[in-house]
Amino acid sequence: MSYTAELIAVGTELLLGNIANTDAQMLSRGLSELGINVFYHTVVGDNPQRLQAAVDLAKTRADIIITTGGLGPTCDDLTKNVLAQCFGRKLVYDETSAKRIERYFQQLHTKRPMTANNYQQAMLPEGCTIFSNDWGTAPGCAFEAEGVHVIMLPGPPRECAAMFQHRAVPYLKRFSDGEICSRTLRVFGLGESSVEDQLRDRMNTLTNPTLAPYAKEGEVELRITAKAHTHAEAQALIAPVEAEVRDLLGDAVYGADVDSLEAVVLELLREKQFTLGCAESCTGGLIAKRFTDLPGASAVFRGGIVSYTNTVKEGLLKVPQALLEEYGAVSAQVAEAMAQGARQALGCDLAVATTGVAGPDSDDRGNPVGLVFVALSTSEGTQVKRLESPAGGRPRIRNTAASHAFQLLLHYLQRV
Amino acid sequence: MSYTAELIAVGTELLLGNIANTDAQMLSRGLSELGINVFYHTVVGDNPQRLQAAVDLAKTRADIIITTGGLGPTCDDLTKNVLAQCFGRKLVYDETSAKRIERYFQQLHTKRPMTANNYQQAMLPEGCTIFSNDWGTAPGCAFEAEGVHVIMLPGPPRECAAMFQHRAVPYLKRFSDGEICSRTLRVFGLGESSVEDQLRDRMNTLTNPTLAPYAKEGEVELRITAKAHTHAEAQALIAPVEAEVRDLLGDAVYGADVDSLEAVVLELLREKQFTLGCAESCTGGLIAKRFTDLPGASAVFRGGIVSYTNTVKEGLLKVPQALLEEYGAVSAQVAEAMAQGARQALGCDLAVATTGVAGPDSDDRGNPVGLVFVALSTSEGTQVKRLESPAGGRPRIRNTAASHAFQLLLHYLQRV
Repeated sequence: MSYTAELIAVGTELLLGNIANTDAQMLSRGLSELGINVFYHTVVGDNPQRLQAAVDLAKTRADIIITTGGLGPTCDDLTKNVLAQCFGRKLVYDETSAKRIERYFQQLHTKRPMTANNYQQAMLPEGCTIFSNDWGTAPGCAFEAEGVHVIMLPGPPRECAAMFQHRAVPYLKRFSDGEICSRTLRVFGLGESSVEDQLRDRMNTLTNPTLAPYAKEGEVELRITAKAHTHAEAQALIAPVEAEVRDLLGDAVYGADVDSLEAVVLELLREKQFTLGCAESCTGGLIAKRFTDLPGASAVFRGGIVSYTNTVKEGLLKVPQALLEEYGAVSAQVAEAMAQGARQALGCDLAVATTGVAGPDSDDRGNPVGLVFVALSTSEGTQVKRLESPAGGRPRIRNTAASHAFQLLLHYLQRV
Repeated sequence: MSYTAELIAVGTELLLGNIANTDAQMLSRGLSELGINVFYHTVVGDNPQRLQAAVDLAKTRADIIITTGGLGPTCDDLTKNVLAQCFGRKLVYDETSAKRIERYFQQLHTKRPMTANNYQQAMLPEGCTIFSNDWGTAPGCAFEAEGVHVIMLPGPPRECAAMFQHRAVPYLKRFSDGEICSRTLRVFGLGESSVEDQLRDRMNTLTNPTLAPYAKEGEVELRITAKAHTHAEAQALIAPVEAEVRDLLGDAVYGADVDSLEAVVLELLREKQFTLGCAESCTGGLIAKRFTDLPGASAVFRGGIVSYTNTVKEGLLKVPQALLEEYGAVSAQVAEAMAQGARQALGCDLAVATTGVAGPDSDDRGNPVGLVFVALSTSEGTQVKRLESPAGGRPRIRNTAASHAFQLLLHYLQRV
């Protein structure tokens, strides 16, 4: 049989729009991978009557109720009290949780002292399974009553995600008969609608594994999820679908279960012992920023030059003035010279460069918004790619250009 | 009297966790500014029975029901059918809406042809107020029945936001007696908890205007919202609270109704006709990236040098080798030399520099993760600020360091 879960988020800050309910998205993804259906999300404020109404309703239609938020030490935090009451449970003091909270405060070196209220977080429903919290103070918990499983998790997204993954998922495995595995293929360079058009029929006919697209800024994630008795059987279900997708989408698929294009590039640079540098005009530091977002980037990254004026292009990147005059700063010729100049100036093995019109206005030579040249210079020579972004505005144009630079690097590194 | 609204989002993609319900956040903020209370958010899938259950419940407890999603042309899109049925309304064909949809497709130059299904989007509840959609195909609408006001908006966030702002808000003004104005103060350099500690009493006692904090990555937004008969009266209510907050928080308040620290800096650079450059080690291009995110940055920004190795610091920024050897790359002395070197190499009036340990590991001299030096070099000299981030990991350390660089610039520009 298939189980049904309902999510109840507790917090007036959600109803005021101070934050979005990203916990619900994270939990929904996770539950979907466990094969548990989610039919409703509800958000209520820090109000006992309205929370009780939501829980009373959820009891009538869900096998599993998961609450997020309202476990903190202030008087607003009422989830445990209301849930315990709805299911006729007492709250009892848990010594172990209290000790953990004390230790957390000691380690935190926080300016705020631990107060009596913090001990309230150690009050938990009698007989529950305690989810100890290694990422914050409030423990979570789970109990079964009236045929319903209740799980309470803290609200802050980072804590909620860790508590779900490491505490709730093991508890929930009982509702998932068998092993669930998933593999995420990352796709760059094909529009979302194009990916969906090519895969729609397969997505609609596949049931095990399932194939689901998640659109990300300029990219598509394709998640293949299989359910089987063993891990190996699940993997065996995934493999042919992965092969089929890779076959269909070609080298637009840049990796499986990887973080980003630049993460794959970093991996390959380390493996092949190449150093990297960049020269950026329209991306204005974004390539360097994205690459140095990665821990460990310093092992291969030498540096970058953001050349936002022709003077800097000539001075630091040694782009010949004649090229700038003849072709303009936004040209294949200048992109090429920038990449070569960066390799020289930074003393690196590989250098990428961008020059283009990020908008909002076209440039003084009438080049349209979205026209970008991306170059890669190596010991074998220099290649340039011309991009004409259809739409999306300045952030999208810059981000896509940076991704194309990483893709050029990736294809080169896969080849050498 | 105060009105109550309930939000119902329709879409299986929300229950699968493909997207977060950001529409609910946007609408909640907007309704809160209109003085309309939101007590519940509900999310249901593309399922008529469950949507009907949610609407039947909402009818019993809300004055206004706002739905998002489910207005599209596919068979999944069922919101209008269910809502019309719940309130005993017929759907009727609206010629004007059909014509608008046709025009939209003509303008779009899309590869996808308009299909018969698209005409279904022109079916609307009899007697409703039509919200024409200039940002997509599906019109929204509003009607009153059984003492409840029903508003239906499209789901895609960009469309939903525009339709709310330009169509729903004018309709909703009737529930808000008077003029609502708000002003947002942006605060950097004080922790969220510190801002809240200092303002908690005022936030709890103020009713008109209200004062609400919105935490953002490393920053705090303080929104003051007033309700009055006229715009001028509302402004007059806001002014003394703004003055009080500025008095309390000092120059941590960097602007009112502005986009970001760097946007204020750009404004002042243009006004005072200074050019800017940067030298980045631990921020790795983030300062340049954030500044060039701003349209119009090219008027003042010369460029940047990301010096991720000592060789680049020596070669391009002319940081003396002796300094690097004596004090190490992460030091006040090197930050100072980097800022001076950037000013020279980039030929700019003002240059900022960063050097520090972004983590995850401490550096080879044992400097701890989070130690960062930020420098500003001007024609008057160079100043350095030492930062010790308490926690937050690599992205937070880098982002905070970049913000401190902009704050140094801001304070300098406010003074000269």
